[in-house]
Amino acid sequence: MKYKMIAICAFALAFCHIEAKTRTILIAPAPAEAAASTSKAEGFDAEVLYSDDDATPAVIRALDEARKAGGDVKIIFKKGRHNFKGNFGRDIYCFISNNDEGLKRVIFPIVGQKNITIDGGGSEFVFHGLISPFLIQSSENVRLENFSVDTARPFHTEAEIVKVEKDHAIVKFSEKFPYRILDGILQFVDSNKYDNPKNAIVYQTWGYLVYDKEKRQPAYNTFDTWAKAGFIAENLSDGTVKIMGKFTGEPGQILVFTPFLRNHPGIVISDSKNVSLDNVEVRNCGGMAIIGQRSRDIFVKNCRVTPSEGAVVSATADATHFSNCEGKIVLENNFFECQLDDFTNIHGIYERIEKVISPRKILTKLVHYEQYGFGTFRAGDKVEIIGGKSMICKNENRVKSVERINKEYSVLELENDIPQSVKALDAVAVLRDWPEVVIRGNTARGNRARGMLINSRGKTLVENNHFMSAGTAILFEGDSCFWFEQGGTRDCTIRGNTFDNCLYANWGNAVISVRAGIREEKETSRYNKNILIENNTFKMFDDASLLNIYCVDSLTWRNNKVEKTNAYPPMKKRAGSKKFVVENCSNIKIEE
Amino acid sequence: MKYKMIAICAFALAFCHIEAKTRTILIAPAPAEAAASTSKAEGFDAEVLYSDDDATPAVIRALDEARKAGGDVKIIFKKGRHNFKGNFGRDIYCFISNNDEGLKRVIFPIVGQKNITIDGGGSEFVFHGLISPFLIQSSENVRLENFSVDTARPFHTEAEIVKVEKDHAIVKFSEKFPYRILDGILQFVDSNKYDNPKNAIVYQTWGYLVYDKEKRQPAYNTFDTWAKAGFIAENLSDGTVKIMGKFTGEPGQILVFTPFLRNHPGIVISDSKNVSLDNVEVRNCGGMAIIGQRSRDIFVKNCRVTPSEGAVVSATADATHFSNCEGKIVLENNFFECQLDDFTNIHGIYERIEKVISPRKILTKLVHYEQYGFGTFRAGDKVEIIGGKSMICKNENRVKSVERINKEYSVLELENDIPQSVKALDAVAVLRDWPEVVIRGNTARGNRARGMLINSRGKTLVENNHFMSAGTAILFEGDSCFWFEQGGTRDCTIRGNTFDNCLYANWGNAVISVRAGIREEKETSRYNKNILIENNTFKMFDDASLLNIYCVDSLTWRNNKVEKTNAYPPMKKRAGSKKFVVENCSNIKIEE
Repeated sequence: MKYKMIAICAFALAFCHIEAKTRTILIAPAPAEAAASTSKAEGFDAEVLYSDDDATPAVIRALDEARKAGGDVKIIFKKGRHNFKGNFGRDIYCFISNNDEGLKRVIFPIVGQKNITIDGGGSEFVFHGLISPFLIQSSENVRLENFSVDTARPFHTEAEIVKVEKDHAIVKFSEKFPYRILDGILQFVDSNKYDNPKNAIVYQTWGYLVYDKEKRQPAYNTFDTWAKAGFIAENLSDGTVKIMGKFTGEPGQILVFTPFLRNHPGIVISDSKNVSLDNVEVRNCGGMAIIGQRSRDIFVKNCRVTPSEGAVVSATADATHFSNCEGKIVLENNFFECQLDDFTNIHGIYERIEKVISPRKILTKLVHYEQYGFGTFRAGDKVEIIGGKSMICKNENRVKSVERINKEYSVLELENDIPQSVKALDAVAVLRDWPEVVIRGNTARGNRARGMLINSRGKTLVENNHFMSAGTAILFEGDSCFWFEQGGTRDCTIRGNTFDNCLYANWGNAVISVRAGIREEKETSRYNKNILIENNTFKMFDDASLLNIYCVDSLTWRNNKVEKTNAYPPMKKRAGSKKFVVENCSNIKIEE
Repeated sequence: MKYKMIAICAFALAFCHIEAKTRTILIAPAPAEAAASTSKAEGFDAEVLYSDDDATPAVIRALDEARKAGGDVKIIFKKGRHNFKGNFGRDIYCFISNNDEGLKRVIFPIVGQKNITIDGGGSEFVFHGLISPFLIQSSENVRLENFSVDTARPFHTEAEIVKVEKDHAIVKFSEKFPYRILDGILQFVDSNKYDNPKNAIVYQTWGYLVYDKEKRQPAYNTFDTWAKAGFIAENLSDGTVKIMGKFTGEPGQILVFTPFLRNHPGIVISDSKNVSLDNVEVRNCGGMAIIGQRSRDIFVKNCRVTPSEGAVVSATADATHFSNCEGKIVLENNFFECQLDDFTNIHGIYERIEKVISPRKILTKLVHYEQYGFGTFRAGDKVEIIGGKSMICKNENRVKSVERINKEYSVLELENDIPQSVKALDAVAVLRDWPEVVIRGNTARGNRARGMLINSRGKTLVENNHFMSAGTAILFEGDSCFWFEQGGTRDCTIRGNTFDNCLYANWGNAVISVRAGIREEKETSRYNKNILIENNTFKMFDDASLLNIYCVDSLTWRNNKVEKTNAYPPMKKRAGSKKFVVENCSNIKIEE
């Protein structure tokens, strides 16, 4: 399949209706007879560098043209399967919040662009190897629509369980998940067909999870298991593989080997404004499906995260995730399933105070390695300093200057003296223009871990969603001791949702829960505030708590319906649990 | 031990004699009573950020001061052991020729500096963890002297062999080389004393080599063995470890596990001018000891590469290495031993032509992954295009412009049409101001692989050195099919050297050898030219060839002495070898 790029004026292009001033660039497989001319793209005076079965050069070229044009460009794909290989992407070093940093080979580097639309025209985009599909960075008014993102070889690996014994499991890998055994050690690879085995791409793993094959969701009552160094394995004569170790799971279930790193998230939105995703489907990627950081106004509508054929797992981390974002975050009418982490998490980032250098100078550190290089602070930022263990605000201040020492450490100069109570191991975060969050009409099922983590202080509406979470459906987190994620809701309404037999595995013990990292002064600390939970339906298969909260000020529970089901066997450990667990709270109204 | 920095005028500092205009900064452990005042450095108005047992902040501070001062600064260390930890180094993404690229935590980031001296005052510098000691980048007139570089935990691992059986070896690790066995797999770590084993640094390995413990050199007749995925192992009750696999070696010898990556070379000199190293000793680092790239005038004198106590291996790659350097390269009176690769290699870099886009435009690729990001070409560079398999020059040209697509691919626009004979898989390199090379009075012993690879076209003198190489002592390489290293000597004199029982292991079969990658047109290709070999002494323990050359024009061999020894048992495979193997050469004069 050969590609060429054709620039066609919008009015000449029958199948797309856009304003006349918007320039349209079409990327399409070249007809066979045009192969000889593909080194020259019609309508341009530069070359298409490579055109055989790799649409990357066409994309890079189209984005360059859009940049030159200063925006108002729509890049359209002819409907079909478009392959993207690594050779001609751009190299960009990315620090991506809650994913892994590194020099990424980016296929769609939408960097410093304005007013640009990528319309897949209903195409399947297939990414080959260790490459990063989309990076939207320092851009404005970007729209992605009408395509799916998949990988030629998934970043995770699945195997069907044949048998589980005391010290090993017997499994069977399908062709979708090539593996090999070298030096007696199991490795996951892109292919076994290389002349030199060294040329294979190795997909590192660090643990496994058991999935139910028919339901395409984590197995009932399952939990995470992390490998430490690898798996010793042996090929058996019948085509199955014996893997040493203590495994859970039953014949017919799926062992999902989870990736070691989140190096290649699907769509990264960084330091950008007004980004819309509509009718985009992520089937697999090496990290989160959609991750926004330090951006304003992000809209995700009518999107899906769902596994490709022959797999039970989709993205290898959260479906969506937003760090230090502002403006509006809208998640509407999406269908997210089978990803290896939460539906969403909307939070800020704390840095830990390592040392108070002077009353206006502090040494700070990003603690979690997936936050390194985040660049949390800028001169002029308003900040809060909280007690590391109490999470009580000790001081609000403003940043005068920032000296970044490296990806971990910074020195902040503040405009005003900090109180003497501020000390090492307290934490500091930006007080942003909190995003208004609307999460409406989504369905979430089949993923590992929780539903959503609501850690934003803007007006937050969670309405008419259908949750079938393996763990807690809605979690209020925030801590300054492990994840260092800033939360603390101020105005959150949860209404009209169906919580459909959540908590069938071991990621939480209440459908709606607070698990903020408050270790001291619980009597006075009130980190989350003003939560209204009304008109929801809770379908419950056992005695799990509906609500488990602490250190909350003002929560109202009313007009919620609870229905008993037989969806799963009840878990013994929950027998007789209290429906509502409330500790160290104020102004709680529960109307059963 | 606490550190502080004291700025002292040169004339007040008794033990250093430098010109009055040079500013001197002393880095010294702070006396205990001064601990409370170390957050303020005397003579400066800024802070020392961290001062307990880590000299890094003092170094960063001193270098910042030197940069502000615009140069003419000497940074002196008080003699002693100075520790450098990772926290406060600078993060710099480095592409380092023939080492591994990555974001490095650099402890001495000498970047964009002029007229600066680092004088260790005879100190031991000990680097902790995955950090990079020295980066001299875009700097001029830099002098490093009077210190040693070592690591708290070596990048490689050594174990004494207790027994070798058919499918396993029994070995014993010393405390210098901590290891652990997780999931049945052997891992090398910095320490086993962490509360959480996840916090340990894991040192990846990819093969092993057998060393003779007493001689501290590769075992007689040994060879490289590469692991593919890892080692399955088991702790035995007597403190020894059983490692599965086919091993060579004998009880009492040392199994050296070689590092997977060359991520942290000792001293990197990049895009700099006039850099001198004098009385610097590298005991261990994670890559080459000294590597220069795209730099002019490098002087390495009175330096040593030698293992630290309790080890048989020093640096984990070449002692020195120079890519695309110019001006002068002087290696004089050095003692290099026990490193895991060659004594030196002085070469250029070819990029492969992937596609002829037009008569003046070619798509090129850096092929070897350790050359990615090299940035070979700049506008204005004179270049040669050679036949990929013949290495015959097809065209000389000049670069008009370079478009770097990513770390692998570039598009070169040339000033003149290239001939039609130029095609994909030919190669292109810069025609530089070839360095004049002087390699005099050095001793080289105990290292893996070869002595030196002479791949420079400048006047090259190899004089009065003592070679005890495990493989070939002097190799003329250059190829455009695997390593893509540009060579082709034009004027090389090798005289007065002692080749002292070289070739005791399996890296070559002649003391002086040509192994250029010429695959076609050998009858006419003459890649290396004008070599004079005179007045050398060859001590030989078997029938190995003295000289094995091909495709050379003009070589003279005269007044060389050959002495027979009993240093090692003769190798059977060499019995009756011709002393001189000459194929496809012109103008060869051999006077025995």
